[in-house]
Amino acid sequence: MSEMQIETKLGISAQAFKDGMASLAGAVNIVTTLDQGEKVGFTATAVCSVSDSPATLLVCLNRNASVYERFKNASTLAINTLAKGQDGLSNVFGGKAPMQERFNNGEWQSLQTGSPVLADAAVSFDCQIIHRQSVATHDVFFCEVLAIKQTDNAGALLYFQRGYHHLNANAV
Amino acid sequence: MSEMQIETKLGISAQAFKDGMASLAGAVNIVTTLDQGEKVGFTATAVCSVSDSPATLLVCLNRNASVYERFKNASTLAINTLAKGQDGLSNVFGGKAPMQERFNNGEWQSLQTGSPVLADAAVSFDCQIIHRQSVATHDVFFCEVLAIKQTDNAGALLYFQRGYHHLNANAV
Repeated sequence: MSEMQIETKLGISAQAFKDGMASLAGAVNIVTTLDQGEKVGFTATAVCSVSDSPATLLVCLNRNASVYERFKNASTLAINTLAKGQDGLSNVFGGKAPMQERFNNGEWQSLQTGSPVLADAAVSFDCQIIHRQSVATHDVFFCEVLAIKQTDNAGALLYFQRGYHHLNANAV
Repeated sequence: MSEMQIETKLGISAQAFKDGMASLAGAVNIVTTLDQGEKVGFTATAVCSVSDSPATLLVCLNRNASVYERFKNASTLAINTLAKGQDGLSNVFGGKAPMQERFNNGEWQSLQTGSPVLADAAVSFDCQIIHRQSVATHDVFFCEVLAIKQTDNAGALLYFQRGYHHLNANAV
């Protein structure tokens, strides 16, 4: 049993949870919106499919994040799922750089809502926010998908065990 | 632009959404509970971290899924995140096999709530369900983590482009 760590109590510490979550691999996304004409975006792994009818995703955002004020009244957002090799973009949008500087990296377009869409993301979901739910420290944004743009053979950028990993397009 | 597919309309078809979601890689999990003493479980990629204080995850479940009736009144569940190479378990719990037959595969234990915990999962989160939210066709189960069990160097099983992929424990 030496390879097991078991932690059992009523409620788990934040550190124990983070250690556990390090073993749950996640796709890396840049979530964007337009706030009073300014492009805003942050890196997120807490993105999840909800339904295909209507097409719905969710995004979790910490209410203490500096970017929260820019998203809390938004009516639309885009989820840009990063391709293999886009580690640099993930770092820029996950760091402290001012918004304008962030968007100097990568080529940004728009689809239907005007939220910034990354030209060479693996896939981008352009969404209307249909519901917000506060849970613990975070708001969960439920988003109905209005437009999708995909790039073929883009592979995937993953975050796992506190580092980036890459998947090729079709290798199994 | 031949590598791009752009689909823009008010609302996206279920098929277009599924095609897009194929590019969003997800960790594979077996979500379990005890229903009147019987072990119940299904394979899910729609699992997402919500908060670390208190430690909270969410799981999305289609209300039309056969297993939904077994989960809709549950007060606890466990999320077992699969390790590299556990494709077979994923298939068994994602298929049509009766519940008892599913749990003949793998070694099952319990931690705090009694929900079945897979002995060699990469990580298992034993949870109390704190809130349910209906969104479109699905219910979102918000789950507070009471206990965690991890297996070192388990790697990860991922679902991406409609097939399984594997990550080694520490390769970047």
